[in-house]
Amino acid sequence: MQLAESMIEDWRAFTTNVSLADAVITGPAIIVTWGDGRVSPFHFMWLRDNCACNQCVHPLTREQVFEIADVPDDLAAQAASIGGAGALHVQWTDGHRSVYTPGWLRAHAYDDASRAERHRAGKAHPWAAEYGAALATFDWRDVEHDDAALHAWLSALRATGLTLLRGVPVEPGSVAAVARRISFIRESNFGVLFDVASKPMPDSNAYTSINLPPHTDLPTRELQPGLQFLHCLVNDAPGGDSIFIDGFALATHLREHEPDAFATLSSTAFEFWNKSATSDYRASAPIIALDGRGEVIEVRHANFLRGPIDAPLASMPAIYEAYRRFIELARDERFRVRHRLAAGEMWAFDNRRVLHARTEFDPQLGARHLQGCYIDRDELLSRIRVLERALPPGS
Amino acid sequence: MQLAESMIEDWRAFTTNVSLADAVITGPAIIVTWGDGRVSPFHFMWLRDNCACNQCVHPLTREQVFEIADVPDDLAAQAASIGGAGALHVQWTDGHRSVYTPGWLRAHAYDDASRAERHRAGKAHPWAAEYGAALATFDWRDVEHDDAALHAWLSALRATGLTLLRGVPVEPGSVAAVARRISFIRESNFGVLFDVASKPMPDSNAYTSINLPPHTDLPTRELQPGLQFLHCLVNDAPGGDSIFIDGFALATHLREHEPDAFATLSSTAFEFWNKSATSDYRASAPIIALDGRGEVIEVRHANFLRGPIDAPLASMPAIYEAYRRFIELARDERFRVRHRLAAGEMWAFDNRRVLHARTEFDPQLGARHLQGCYIDRDELLSRIRVLERALPPGS
Repeated sequence: MQLAESMIEDWRAFTTNVSLADAVITGPAIIVTWGDGRVSPFHFMWLRDNCACNQCVHPLTREQVFEIADVPDDLAAQAASIGGAGALHVQWTDGHRSVYTPGWLRAHAYDDASRAERHRAGKAHPWAAEYGAALATFDWRDVEHDDAALHAWLSALRATGLTLLRGVPVEPGSVAAVARRISFIRESNFGVLFDVASKPMPDSNAYTSINLPPHTDLPTRELQPGLQFLHCLVNDAPGGDSIFIDGFALATHLREHEPDAFATLSSTAFEFWNKSATSDYRASAPIIALDGRGEVIEVRHANFLRGPIDAPLASMPAIYEAYRRFIELARDERFRVRHRLAAGEMWAFDNRRVLHARTEFDPQLGARHLQGCYIDRDELLSRIRVLERALPPGS
Repeated sequence: MQLAESMIEDWRAFTTNVSLADAVITGPAIIVTWGDGRVSPFHFMWLRDNCACNQCVHPLTREQVFEIADVPDDLAAQAASIGGAGALHVQWTDGHRSVYTPGWLRAHAYDDASRAERHRAGKAHPWAAEYGAALATFDWRDVEHDDAALHAWLSALRATGLTLLRGVPVEPGSVAAVARRISFIRESNFGVLFDVASKPMPDSNAYTSINLPPHTDLPTRELQPGLQFLHCLVNDAPGGDSIFIDGFALATHLREHEPDAFATLSSTAFEFWNKSATSDYRASAPIIALDGRGEVIEVRHANFLRGPIDAPLASMPAIYEAYRRFIELARDERFRVRHRLAAGEMWAFDNRRVLHARTEFDPQLGARHLQGCYIDRDELLSRIRVLERALPPGS
């Protein structure tokens, strides 16, 4: 049975096949029992805060105008019932009435089972060298016009952190068109687009022809760019292979096999400083960042963009031991995916997860020119969510 | 005595009036004694990591090419001495030699006294309503061409989080010229510049004429924009006063007087969701963010840009009690600076510290048009540092 869906609360549609079976006021909460037996308590304040009526939410912007401090803290539900279209109806002690559709309630329930269900979704799957043979590859000629192809590409990018796009026109600026299929580009001091080629008077090791060791870009910024795109216009110089390492795989390996190094790298603030005549960016952050639940959410690393470590002498041996191990692991072929980009190919990768490196090339013997740009993780995730609003449920 | 300065290590000049008096190898460190009696130990690995010779650092980019994993972990200093220009000379067991100038060593020493000195610098000073009478005010006609005036403005912005600029031409786009005096602009889904006016079919409460309660902009992004600029082109409609509240002052007040609320607001992940037909941004973050040393570094708050709180039932009473208190404090006149922007005036404020609000205005009785844009904190700090390279020491 498909129950009523509602667009009142948000711009999204909330559907559920599970109906509300019962709603009982108990203490400062309404305890809802679902048709499948799940029990979800909803606190009075939480329910009042989420009233979606036209008085509480601006009908055009769908943003809240009500604030919880507008009602006394002893506000209570006087009556709760399951009404038309299976929705939860609440009558408040101050006379206000609220209606919550089952789809919306199910999507936002915070009983243990509902929370665990939500938090399971979207865990990253680390990869090692084997991924090189199964690289998620897409064609720009599909992605450009087809939202389902776009969604497939972006979902793979979110899951693996490394994808290859083929069929990107070999014209300067094409990388911008690809990026803008997702959202606007994140500018940096290197420009909206940057050109990776050997340059006279380089302001970054990236703009020389030397071996470039594994790194994330712009670790010197408080928020590293979420996605990086690197589009190959020409690659005729000997050398210049691309190498990728899943930073989450390195972190997982350390967590399992060298917990002391993992603890040090996830709790020590390293200094990341850019070196330039015209800018002076600095960030202090751990190499491995954890979220509130202890999950690895970010890797930050560029040996050549560091400032002196600022820690007491007593911590230095453990810090350098852990840092040395991280570099050694990133050099280990077991973790490395290697591919030499051809003209018209483009990397799209998670710059806060995947380290990238480049072998030395000889600019005397041929041209090598990549163009790149950045987009933040927020933009990727927003785009995926909006695309999914238009997809059939469960797809 | 002014000792040798060096630009070898970086693009900056490091000077010190304190000379190196002694350098002794002790265990895995070189213990340096300074002319003023301070004692700074430097660990072998740290010193080797920071060798600034042309082999270890690329001479053009000044970025490191050496990696600590390139040397064995039992590398040691064989000899340490104070040589020409008062620099520390180190001879390593593998034959490599390094030189460290006293200015650079003093700036990066990590004995307790040196670390405390560095960490004291740059603490924020919270303000309340009284700041309205002493608002840091600057004139764009000075700032536009004079780097010392620019530095004064940016330093005030960093310290107080709220400044007023006068004399900005009343032409659309002028706000971009002001922002670009610092750096490039951070684009968002609202554009490079955004127009704050009452609009038909608004996609944000900001674009209506209603009272807009205290908030930070784009709390729905992982990194809220660091600086916000709001330039007044016309303000002829009755109402529409600007109100500012120092979020750091609210946080400090709570920490001192209501520690439970402070603990809840700094440890609970609130959900910040944008509501739009074309975007779907979400961030989970505490309202008060602390750094590794427990200092308040960010406030994130917009009641109208929240998703349902995702926490166990048992936590809800404390969460709502703390959230209610935060809103009540932000409504308290003791903390509020109020000013009605005139054409040609511009706010520049720290969007990750200062809440801004707007009283209702009547678009039937007059025009009101502000233009705004964002720049990240990284850009402000980099600009200040580069400006300070050119200033005389101590200024």
